[in-house]
Amino acid sequence: MDALNDARSTAPGRFEGGAAFCEGRYVPLSEAKISLFDWGFTRSDATYDVASTWQGAFFRLDDHLDRFFASLGKLRMTIPYSRAQVRQILHGCVRAGGLKDAYVAMVCTRGVPPRGARDPRLAENRFYAYALPFVWIAPRDKQLAGIDMHISERLRIPAASVDPTVKNYHWLDLVQSMFEAYDRGRDTSCVVDERGNITEGPGFNIFVVRGGVVRTPDRGVLEGISRRTVIELCDRLGIPLRQEPVPVADVLAADEVFLSSTGGGVLPIAKVNGQPLRLAHPGPTTTRLYDAYWAMHDEPAYRDPVEYTP
Amino acid sequence: MDALNDARSTAPGRFEGGAAFCEGRYVPLSEAKISLFDWGFTRSDATYDVASTWQGAFFRLDDHLDRFFASLGKLRMTIPYSRAQVRQILHGCVRAGGLKDAYVAMVCTRGVPPRGARDPRLAENRFYAYALPFVWIAPRDKQLAGIDMHISERLRIPAASVDPTVKNYHWLDLVQSMFEAYDRGRDTSCVVDERGNITEGPGFNIFVVRGGVVRTPDRGVLEGISRRTVIELCDRLGIPLRQEPVPVADVLAADEVFLSSTGGGVLPIAKVNGQPLRLAHPGPTTTRLYDAYWAMHDEPAYRDPVEYTP
Ligand SMILES: Cc1ncc(COP(=O)(O)O)c(C=O)c1O
Ligand SMILES: Cc1ncc(COP(=O)(O)O)c(C=O)c1O
Repeated sequence: MDALNDARSTAPGRFEGGAAFCEGRYVPLSEAKISLFDWGFTRSDATYDVASTWQGAFFRLDDHLDRFFASLGKLRMTIPYSRAQVRQILHGCVRAGGLKDAYVAMVCTRGVPPRGARDPRLAENRFYAYALPFVWIAPRDKQLAGIDMHISERLRIPAASVDPTVKNYHWLDLVQSMFEAYDRGRDTSCVVDERGNITEGPGFNIFVVRGGVVRTPDRGVLEGISRRTVIELCDRLGIPLRQEPVPVADVLAADEVFLSSTGGGVLPIAKVNGQPLRLAHPGPTTTRLYDAYWAMHDEPAYRDPVEYTP
Repeated sequence: MDALNDARSTAPGRFEGGAAFCEGRYVPLSEAKISLFDWGFTRSDATYDVASTWQGAFFRLDDHLDRFFASLGKLRMTIPYSRAQVRQILHGCVRAGGLKDAYVAMVCTRGVPPRGARDPRLAENRFYAYALPFVWIAPRDKQLAGIDMHISERLRIPAASVDPTVKNYHWLDLVQSMFEAYDRGRDTSCVVDERGNITEGPGFNIFVVRGGVVRTPDRGVLEGISRRTVIELCDRLGIPLRQEPVPVADVLAADEVFLSSTGGGVLPIAKVNGQPLRLAHPGPTTTRLYDAYWAMHDEPAYRDPVEYTP
């Protein structure tokens, strides 16, 4: 336990600009590597979670740990660290990386089954963690200038193939949609399901607002922690919210559209497929939720401050 | 060019037991690693191909190179090596690894876009290669004892999400089906499409034989090089072959079932879901194709011998 978090290996700013935890020790980002033979790479047989720190404190870290350990269970993976130890390792990465606003990842890969065997049950699973400077889905100046979201016709990998509630790296569908977006001069993208409903985008859930009612897809998507925050804030603020299938047509005809992500919280969208939305952005409901999202970061129940002086 | 293949760095058996080519140089397998931040890992944004050498010669290497370069194009990736150079690097890995029967992989990952950017067009793609001792989907003793294939109800990731003709690492569906198989004491597994047809398994295509007619799925699967070999051999041997959807019921009611893979060629199946097939295994059509598959390895047109003494 002490080895994971001792004062020397996680000395504040020891690895300026970010730090990783690999094979049981803290290393600079340049040494954060996995084997080319790990099934986490060769079969994308891995799960992960991304939390964040903002102004020196984790936000809803318990929720991220809950989701990570639930994902491990669903993929039948185990790690040699308890929940308390993972929490310590994440704190250690942020501290050693000298970061206040950080993107903080925890990752588990299948590992490699013994020579000659193909049975995933025999592999020793591997745990990695790292902290980087905060990563924005879109930076604040871009949010103000107005994000243009492309709706791709590509299908999100369906739940019957890969359980979307297990946070996973199966992203080729999302990456292809990003190429489509950038080729058209748009800023980000999302993909759909086989019934023509929107699902999610590279790193975010999606919300539409029409006539004061907020809606977000109820299935086929990651149950984002920021999505949960938005849902809870709607409840607190008395804003009607429905979790249900959302057809693409309803996105195009929305008053407001916004995204939710650990990578920036509530992110207003100005245009969809190059067309401005009905209300000038950021619209009133998006703005209320945006303000409430950032205000929530000051509530002690959701804060887990990093101790920078050990 | 010379640096890729010079006598010193690929000296025969320099890295006994296998060799890799990473970041422009040959290294032992223990040093074959990729960055934890490469999109090839964090988004499974990668393509690869696997060729083999048998008794000191590559088999159909040109077909594997064709498929690899086609996959690169479809994912909009580029590598700093020509086709001739990739061929040299693969030869170099086999030679430096001191291998006669080898599993030989070439891999391209997206890399990492510049700090702060999310545009995949800006990333510098990475190339890796390695040679390991030959990997069997099922070893020969197991093939003789009789392989039992589990048909999972899980859906293969559909083509509308991820193009299956681009050889890719999106395998969580296949890995989950392997857990189901091993939990039931079966040897391997395959997954289906949304219409209840079989697709493919972890590393192989599937063929069924009934009344002397061979059938294999025509869509939603990787266009395996071994699959192509089987199709060509059926033509040569006058065995009727159809590429068309194959319902699960037709697999259960087949006279014979076999797999095709670079990892072992034509692989007879003895049981499906624990039930023996109609004909004792290996059945007559499977045996003819098995023999023809291995005989083809002696045809000069398909052989590319490794030069072990540089
Ligand atoms: C596919 C996908 N959907 C949604 C999200 C948003 O989840 P969260 O709010 O927990 O960051 C993410 C986050 O990375 C994601 O990868
Ligand atoms: C999903 C999948 N299908 C089929 C195959 C068989 O292809 P090939 O005959 O080229 O080895 C593979 C090979 O790894 C594969 O990964």
